[in-house]
Amino acid sequence: MPELRKDPVVGRWVIMATERSQRPSDFVKAREPRKGGPCAFCPGMEHQTPPEVLAYRNAGGQPNQPGWRVRGVPNKFPALRIEGELGRRGEGLYDLMNGIGAHEVMIETPNHERGMADLEPSQIEEVLWAYRDRVLDLQRDERFRYVIVFKNHGAGAGASLEHSHSQLIALPILPLNVQQELRGATEYYRLKERCIFCDIVFQESGDRRRMILENQSFIVVSPFAARFPFELWVVPKIHGSHFEHATVPEYRDLAHALKASLGAIKSALDDPPFNYIIHSAPLGEPRSKSYHWHVEITPALTTVAGFEVGTGFYINPVPPEAAASHLRDVLNGNNLAAMTGNSAGVPVRNASAL
Amino acid sequence: MPELRKDPVVGRWVIMATERSQRPSDFVKAREPRKGGPCAFCPGMEHQTPPEVLAYRNAGGQPNQPGWRVRGVPNKFPALRIEGELGRRGEGLYDLMNGIGAHEVMIETPNHERGMADLEPSQIEEVLWAYRDRVLDLQRDERFRYVIVFKNHGAGAGASLEHSHSQLIALPILPLNVQQELRGATEYYRLKERCIFCDIVFQESGDRRRMILENQSFIVVSPFAARFPFELWVVPKIHGSHFEHATVPEYRDLAHALKASLGAIKSALDDPPFNYIIHSAPLGEPRSKSYHWHVEITPALTTVAGFEVGTGFYINPVPPEAAASHLRDVLNGNNLAAMTGNSAGVPVRNASAL
Repeated sequence: MPELRKDPVVGRWVIMATERSQRPSDFVKAREPRKGGPCAFCPGMEHQTPPEVLAYRNAGGQPNQPGWRVRGVPNKFPALRIEGELGRRGEGLYDLMNGIGAHEVMIETPNHERGMADLEPSQIEEVLWAYRDRVLDLQRDERFRYVIVFKNHGAGAGASLEHSHSQLIALPILPLNVQQELRGATEYYRLKERCIFCDIVFQESGDRRRMILENQSFIVVSPFAARFPFELWVVPKIHGSHFEHATVPEYRDLAHALKASLGAIKSALDDPPFNYIIHSAPLGEPRSKSYHWHVEITPALTTVAGFEVGTGFYINPVPPEAAASHLRDVLNGNNLAAMTGNSAGVPVRNASAL
Repeated sequence: MPELRKDPVVGRWVIMATERSQRPSDFVKAREPRKGGPCAFCPGMEHQTPPEVLAYRNAGGQPNQPGWRVRGVPNKFPALRIEGELGRRGEGLYDLMNGIGAHEVMIETPNHERGMADLEPSQIEEVLWAYRDRVLDLQRDERFRYVIVFKNHGAGAGASLEHSHSQLIALPILPLNVQQELRGATEYYRLKERCIFCDIVFQESGDRRRMILENQSFIVVSPFAARFPFELWVVPKIHGSHFEHATVPEYRDLAHALKASLGAIKSALDDPPFNYIIHSAPLGEPRSKSYHWHVEITPALTTVAGFEVGTGFYINPVPPEAAASHLRDVLNGNNLAAMTGNSAGVPVRNASAL
C-alpha cells in the first residue's frame, strides 16, 4: 500500500510509492515515450487498459470496445489505491495515512496522431464534460477532498505515453498549492469583500497588455507574476468556485479558449511540452465567494530545478506582456486558420484588435 | 531594469527579466553546458568575469589574478541589479518593485575538472566560509531581506557552466517557501514550545531508518515526506536559526557531511544532476527559537513538471527509507575510500552500523 506522508514543517503531502519502489539504476536514463501507434489507448486495444469508468460512444456501442469518442479508465499503474481505509495515524511527530485515492486516465481522442490543439472544439468540449462527470462521481466517495485534473503533454512535461490523454487524481487531502490559493483568496475577500480572481479579470480586461484572447465566458491572460515563459491562465468571467458546477456555455467556451491557447503555444513554440491543471475549490464544499476556479497552462520551456522547487522563487526570462503580444500576433497571423482547424467555430476575440 | 512581481493570490515573488527578454525561438532547443576547460572560471581567465568580490588566495597573490582557492564574482548576466531604489509600488491590485538585488557566483575550485564531491573537505569548508562572508557582507545592505545560497550541478539541474560553482541571490523579499517554513515552524513552536527541526533530529536519531550518516554536528537524513528520490537534508544537531552564525566546528563538520552525501549520490546514481539550497532565517532577524537552518539536497532524477509545480503535490517513487538504506550501503561499501578521497578525514559514523 502506498502512503500519503505530510511534511511536518510546511504541510505538503507526498505520495510515497512504497511498493513499486524503483531502484537507483532506474534513474540513470530518462525514459522517452514510445513513438507511433497503435498503443494501449488506441481503438481495438481496449483490453490493454483496466475496464473503462466512462466512455462517450455512439449509440449501439459496447463498453470496452471501439466506437468511443472519449474514454476514461483507471490508471494501470496507479499512484494510489481505491480500496481500503484511510488509516490516518501518527509516527512520532509525523503524520501519514494509507495511499487511498483514485488515479484515472482520460483518453481524449481515439486518434493516436492528434494532440489536444488539433482536436475539434466539440471534441475538447466532450473531454471537459468527461472531467466533470468523473469529478461528480468521485466526490460521492466521502474519503476524497480533492480531484486534481491535469494534462502532461510531451516527455519534457512528464507524459509517458504519446497518445493524447489527461489524468485525474482523487485525494483524501488538499494539495499544498490549493491550500495556499484558498488561504490567499480568503484573506483578500476578508479585506476587500471581493473575489481576487474577479478583480484580476476586471483589471486585465481593461489593461489588455497581458490578454491573449477572450470569448463570451473566459479571458486568457499571461499572469502578472507568471513563473514561466508563456504561462497562461484561462479564467471564467463570471464568478464560480467549482469547475464541476460550470454552465453549459462555459464548457463550450472553455473548449474554444483551450484550443486557441494550446494552438497558439504549439505554433509559436514548435509544439513544446506543456501541462495544464484545473484549479478548483475542494470537493463538496459549499460554493465559495472568494475562490474562483480557472485553468493554468504552463509550457515546459525552461528547466525547473531544485532552485525553483526549493525556494518557490522563479526567474522568468519572458515578461508576460511580451509573451501575450507574441501569442496575439500568432493568433492574428496566417497560422490562425490552420491552427484552429475550423476558424469559423472559434469565437475568440483577439485582445490586440481592441 | 528587471522587476520583482508578486502573485496577488499566493504571495509568490518572481523576477521578471524585462530587459534581456528571450524570444520564443530561444526555447526551441535546450542548451547544454560547454564541455571541457579552460573556461571563464579557470585560473588565468579572471578578466572574463566581473572583478571579484571575494577571494581566498595564498599570501602575496593579487586580486583578479591566478592563485585563488575560492573566488566570488558578480554574475556577468545578473537576474537583478545592485544599484537603485526599491521603488515599491502598486499597479492596480498588483504589487511590484524594481529588480534590486545581488546575484553572485562562487567558484568553488580553480580545477575545472573537479565537482564538489571530488574536492577535499578542507576545500569545501572554505567554500562554506566564503558563503558566510558574502552573506554577512550583503546583509549590511538594508534593502536585502534574504540571501538564497544554492548550487546547480549538471544541465538537468539548471547549471549553464560546467566548472563547479554555486550562486548567491540577495533579495529584498522573502521567497515563498521560506515564508511557508517560517510560518510552519512558528506554529509548531507556539503549540509545543519546541523547534520542529530539533524534534526531527531527535526522532530521526532514534529511528535511524532514514539516516544516511552523522557526525559531531550534523545528521544527514532522507526526510520523512521526501518530494524526490534520494532527497537529503543536512541538519545541525544544535539549534541555530542562521547559517551565517554557525560555529567553526559546524562549518568543518558540514563540509565533511556534504562531501560524503554528495559522494554517495554521485556513486550510487552515476553523477546525477543535483541542487542544494541553504535554508536559513531572514537576514538580520534576531536569532529564532523556532527556525533551524539546514541544507536541502535534491537530485534531479525525475522530470519536475507543471503538475508538481502547479499543485505542490509530489509522487515519490522511492521511499526515503529505501534511499537511505542504499546510500548507507554505498558509504559502507568498497566505494567509500574512492569516493571520499581521504577516508581518514571523514568523521562520519554510518547509521546502519548502529
